Amino acid sequence: MSSSAGIIIIGDEILSGRTRDTNINWIANELNKLGINLKEARIIEDDKKIIKNTVLEFSKKFTYVFTSGGIGPTHDDITTESIAEAFQVDLEKNKIAMKLLKKYYETSNIDFNEARQKMAIIPKGASLIDNAVSIAPGFNIKNVYVFAGIPKIMQCMFHSISSKLKGGIIIKSKTITCNVGEGKIAIDLGQIEKKFLNMKIGSYPYFNPQSFGTSIVIRSENIEDIDIAVEKIIKMIKKFGGNFEILM
Amino acid sequence: MSSSAGIIIIGDEILSGRTRDTNINWIANELNKLGINLKEARIIEDDKKIIKNTVLEFSKKFTYVFTSGGIGPTHDDITTESIAEAFQVDLEKNKIAMKLLKKYYETSNIDFNEARQKMAIIPKGASLIDNAVSIAPGFNIKNVYVFAGIPKIMQCMFHSISSKLKGGIIIKSKTITCNVGEGKIAIDLGQIEKKFLNMKIGSYPYFNPQSFGTSIVIRSENIEDIDIAVEKIIKMIKKFGGNFEILM
Repeated sequence: MSSSAGIIIIGDEILSGRTRDTNINWIANELNKLGINLKEARIIEDDKKIIKNTVLEFSKKFTYVFTSGGIGPTHDDITTESIAEAFQVDLEKNKIAMKLLKKYYETSNIDFNEARQKMAIIPKGASLIDNAVSIAPGFNIKNVYVFAGIPKIMQCMFHSISSKLKGGIIIKSKTITCNVGEGKIAIDLGQIEKKFLNMKIGSYPYFNPQSFGTSIVIRSENIEDIDIAVEKIIKMIKKFGGNFEILM
Repeated sequence: MSSSAGIIIIGDEILSGRTRDTNINWIANELNKLGINLKEARIIEDDKKIIKNTVLEFSKKFTYVFTSGGIGPTHDDITTESIAEAFQVDLEKNKIAMKLLKKYYETSNIDFNEARQKMAIIPKGASLIDNAVSIAPGFNIKNVYVFAGIPKIMQCMFHSISSKLKGGIIIKSKTITCNVGEGKIAIDLGQIEKKFLNMKIGSYPYFNPQSFGTSIVIRSENIEDIDIAVEKIIKMIKKFGGNFEILM
C-alpha cells in the first residue's frame, strides 16, 4: 500500500493574492520522487478553528500531513497553538529549542526577547525539525510535520525529515508530445486507457502561436507497462498523421 | 455582509508536481479587486466522488465557487459529469454550445468528432460561460462557476462573468517595509493590532544577503483607519531605530 499525503498552506497573505504560494509545487515534486502520493492540498486562513479542523481531518485521511506557515514570532502566527489544541496537547518552552535560539541570537547580537522566545514554544512530546537557515525549529507531532512558510526554510526543514518518510512504490512516467489536437485523439486514447489497469494516462493540450497539440503523460509503477502503452499511443498518433516526441 | 469565495483546482497533474498551478493566485487577486473574500482554495484529484463532495461543501459554505480544470474532450475530463451528479441534474448536448463549436471547427477545418462534441455537454439549466480563446464554453450552475484549467482560457472565462459577481466592500491595504527584525517588533505590533478592530495586520519577514527586516501589511475597509495604524507603526519602528518605506 502506497503512502499518501496532504499539504496545508496556512496564510491570509496567500488567499488575498499578495503572496503566490510556491510550496505546494515544491513539496509535490519531492513527494513524487519519494513515491508518496499527494492526494490534496489546501490553502486556508489564519484561523484557529479552521486550522484545527483541517489538521485533524488530514491527519485521519492521509499517511503524512505537511503544514507550512504561521510559526513565526508575531501575533498572526497561530499554527503551533492551533495544532496543540487539535491534538489536546499542552504547549511548553522546549529546552533544546530555547538553547539553540539563545545561542543563535547571542552570536548575532540580537535581543532574544519574549516574541522570539515564542518560537521555542512547541507542543509537549513533539519532536523538533531542524532549521539550518534561521534556527527556529519546526516540529513533528503524530503524522503531522509543521514547517515554516518561507520557501527556503520550508525546503530545508523538509530535507531534514524526508529520510524518515516511508515512500511507496515510485511512480514512473513517460510523456509523449504530438502535434495532433486533443479532441482528435480523445476517443482512441480513452480506449487505450481502458485496456491498462494500474496506469494513469493524462492528456494536456498545448497551444502556441506556431502550433497546437497534445502532451500525453503515462504514469505507472511498472516501466514495462508504460512502454507497451507508449507503443500503442505512438501507433495511434501515426494513424492520425501526427509527429511525436517521447520525453522521459 | 461581504461576499465569500472558494476555489477548487481539479487535476492530478498539479498534485504530481508536473504542472505548477497559477490559477489560484490569479483568481485571488481578481477577487481581492472586487472585494470578494477568498476563504479557501483546494487542489483535488480527478476523482468523481471527491469532486462531487468538494463542490457541494463549497457551494454551501461560500457565496461563490470557482472550479478550474477537467472540462476538455478526453477520458480524464470528468468535472462536468461530477458537478451534474452533485446537483442531481441531467446532462444534455447544449444547442448553443453545439452551434458555436460546429462553426468554430468548420472554419478551422478540424473534424468536429464525438470527443469534441463532449465539450458541448452541459448540465441542464446551467448557463454558458464564454470562451473567446478556444470556444468550448464553461458553465455556471447555482453558485458554481466552472472554468477550464488552461490559464489563458480560465482568465478569459473569469472576465466574461466577473461583472455578474456581487463584490463586497473593497479591502484597502498599505504595506510598510522596515529594516527591523520581525522578532524585535512582534510584541509592540501585537499590541497595536489589538487596538484596531476590523483591521488585519500581517507581518512578513524578509531576508536577503545584504539585509533583513519585516514587511507589515495593514488591511481594512477604511483607509482613514489604516492611516492611523500606519502612524502608530512608524512611531514604533523609529523607537527601535529602524528605517522604513511605505508602499501602497
